[in-house]
Amino acid sequence: MDIIYGRNTVTEILREGKRKIKKAVIAVEQKNDLSEIIELARKHNITLEYLPRKAVAKLAGDVNHQGAVLVAEKKNIATLDDILEFAASKKEKPFIVILDSVQDPHNLGAVLRTADGAGVHGIILPETNSAHITPVVEKVSSGASEHVLVAIVTNLNIAIERLKEKGVWIYGIEAEGKKDFCEEDLTGAIALVLGSEGEGIRPVVKKNCDVLLRIPMKGKVNSLNVSASAAVVMYETVRQRRGKK
Amino acid sequence: MDIIYGRNTVTEILREGKRKIKKAVIAVEQKNDLSEIIELARKHNITLEYLPRKAVAKLAGDVNHQGAVLVAEKKNIATLDDILEFAASKKEKPFIVILDSVQDPHNLGAVLRTADGAGVHGIILPETNSAHITPVVEKVSSGASEHVLVAIVTNLNIAIERLKEKGVWIYGIEAEGKKDFCEEDLTGAIALVLGSEGEGIRPVVKKNCDVLLRIPMKGKVNSLNVSASAAVVMYETVRQRRGKK
Repeated sequence: MDIIYGRNTVTEILREGKRKIKKAVIAVEQKNDLSEIIELARKHNITLEYLPRKAVAKLAGDVNHQGAVLVAEKKNIATLDDILEFAASKKEKPFIVILDSVQDPHNLGAVLRTADGAGVHGIILPETNSAHITPVVEKVSSGASEHVLVAIVTNLNIAIERLKEKGVWIYGIEAEGKKDFCEEDLTGAIALVLGSEGEGIRPVVKKNCDVLLRIPMKGKVNSLNVSASAAVVMYETVRQRRGKK
Repeated sequence: MDIIYGRNTVTEILREGKRKIKKAVIAVEQKNDLSEIIELARKHNITLEYLPRKAVAKLAGDVNHQGAVLVAEKKNIATLDDILEFAASKKEKPFIVILDSVQDPHNLGAVLRTADGAGVHGIILPETNSAHITPVVEKVSSGASEHVLVAIVTNLNIAIERLKEKGVWIYGIEAEGKKDFCEEDLTGAIALVLGSEGEGIRPVVKKNCDVLLRIPMKGKVNSLNVSASAAVVMYETVRQRRGKK
């Protein structure tokens, strides 16, 4: 559980609506000064609790809580290094998924759920133009969003460069890929890059991929949904890695 | 394009809301008698066209159209034999997906899209307790629902028995499956059975499966979403069948 306090911070977190909040606690003596926070909490269906200032202080600890405290689910935000260290701690080659501009929370949730199943060490999302971990995502992920490490980075290409330095091979999953995904050896240190529903991987990111892999399409539709693409390639990786370290 | 006519039929089809309707055509002379149809069409956002009775007759052909005609997308409903014949016409071993009680239209749409990509010959759905091809499904399927053969059967077990008679091997995809899906030879005539989001395959159907296959789950969530499970096993089948007839 995370405790978040202070008028501005609490207001901002509520406005963002990205954290899963268990409850908002308001010092009853300051209720009238905190009407914006109270309104935001109501708007997001967050449980409101009014406590005497003393009780709020007990909850928040010895800090300037300003009468407003949020009790939030532990934020599952990791760094790139956390993800690499997690792989190392399991004595496995890094297995990372990078989602470039996936904005549909259902798709992010579905990818998280499958990533959990496939034993992916972490997911990397860009800060902007991407879905993040919201209650919808958590629900669709069936709770996987609480377990899978998620790193949010300001610049995907810088993250990719850092992964390359660490020996991670970057695979873009793209309709235009020259190589069939099953023909590639995915048992090494890898990151799979998947693009947005409409546009695919942005060109500026695509050109940074080491190899573009294609999922063969035998019918009339020219691509899979991003969560299906991700599932197919993640489990091909699982299949290839079985019995290997 | 299908032409559907007659007051009762048109009313029923509109009430069901399962067919994709291009437009509803009403004989302007009978407008006042057909207010229920007009209302239903409005409710479903279907284009209404008022034509003289003569023009309606020309559209409907020499039939008792009763002043009400629907112009509908061709219904893509197949029989089991259509699916088997389609496989034979492609000189491929049957590759069929059976969805038992999948009620979420997003999941059905996603499975259809991936089935199109994987070259599945047809999908079998039970008549009751299952999502069918609605506009939402069509949209999510990215149009695949117009191409993939879909058979709707009254009894899934009878359909499974018929497939078995034709030499099709029935695989249930289930968390409790003893065998890892990658360890099975999927290059023969096969049908993959997937169950509903909450309950999995119904016991009465499960016991009719030849083999239950498991997708390994390495994380904390104990199953994949049905559309992800379907994608993973469908593309494992594609992988195994490459270069084989």
